Amino acid sequence: MKRDAQATRQRIFDAATAEFAQYGIAGARIDRIAAAAGSNKAMIYTYFGSKDELFDAVGLEQLNRHMNDVPMDANHLPDYAAKVVEHYCQHPEIMRLVTWARLERGPDAGKLTGLLDAYQRKVEAVAQAQKEGKVSDRFPAATLLELILCLIQTNAEPSAEFGDQDEFQRRQQAVKDAVALLVQV
Amino acid sequence: MKRDAQATRQRIFDAATAEFAQYGIAGARIDRIAAAAGSNKAMIYTYFGSKDELFDAVGLEQLNRHMNDVPMDANHLPDYAAKVVEHYCQHPEIMRLVTWARLERGPDAGKLTGLLDAYQRKVEAVAQAQKEGKVSDRFPAATLLELILCLIQTNAEPSAEFGDQDEFQRRQQAVKDAVALLVQV
Repeated sequence: MKRDAQATRQRIFDAATAEFAQYGIAGARIDRIAAAAGSNKAMIYTYFGSKDELFDAVGLEQLNRHMNDVPMDANHLPDYAAKVVEHYCQHPEIMRLVTWARLERGPDAGKLTGLLDAYQRKVEAVAQAQKEGKVSDRFPAATLLELILCLIQTNAEPSAEFGDQDEFQRRQQAVKDAVALLVQV
Repeated sequence: MKRDAQATRQRIFDAATAEFAQYGIAGARIDRIAAAAGSNKAMIYTYFGSKDELFDAVGLEQLNRHMNDVPMDANHLPDYAAKVVEHYCQHPEIMRLVTWARLERGPDAGKLTGLLDAYQRKVEAVAQAQKEGKVSDRFPAATLLELILCLIQTNAEPSAEFGDQDEFQRRQQAVKDAVALLVQV
């Protein structure tokens, strides 16, 4: 009985990830999620609460997964950037969910995109690499990390999934080279 | 009579810009646009066709306006970047419309975000500056312009409008300095 509940919850979760990534919060339809999960609307509201709460659950889980999927080595930031671009391109739903959150939630999206502890640890790792002279200190650590994420995210955005393999490699290399310029001592 | 029609069309256009920037295509409601414009749904469909066609009209007009608002000087790309960041921050509706188009249209958004002639002229101006040795040629002109736009756009995104003035200046300076590194000969 308990295992069934867990399996149902997971099917709802997966269907909701696909639905929100495609349509966003306003565009998502709970009845479409229910149909795709072989469940029903009442069950979804019981497990997750409102549509907004379901979106938060999906978004937080996906961001947490992503944060752990690509560990950061502050001494090799160009390589890190290249790996993250690849990871995002393989999982376009991550960037789409983050972008919907920003547009549809505005300031509230902090709850989703913050994950402040994990992010703060990355900033500290960059600061440490700067202190050891392995990364330029022309930018404060937090600013440098922001600039790198700008280059990564825009090049791994939804439109990128439609490019061919050569186009992907060209973008990935450009990001890597640009990050190398920013961190060069 | 004709002047009235022109004024009505403009009110619908302005109301639609605000509505689409806030809610996107799926989330926008034609009856809200009609109410804000002091018009009615039938009038909107008569002037603009479908909701999608109204979105295209609004998006194209806003992008065209923006393209002409900040002229690019390829010999001073860091200054250009700083000016565009400021322009986007003052007009957050532009980045929101572009982002909605990318999420809700996917490949079709090219129709909106392309504006290929204007963009191609910018690429050619960068290539010319490279030829004259005023801009580094470590990246092809098109790639360099893409990287610069990545830095500009992510730092002028919706979340930026919620920062205070110091935060804005810090971001703007970071973009300017990063672009300087990319173009440095």
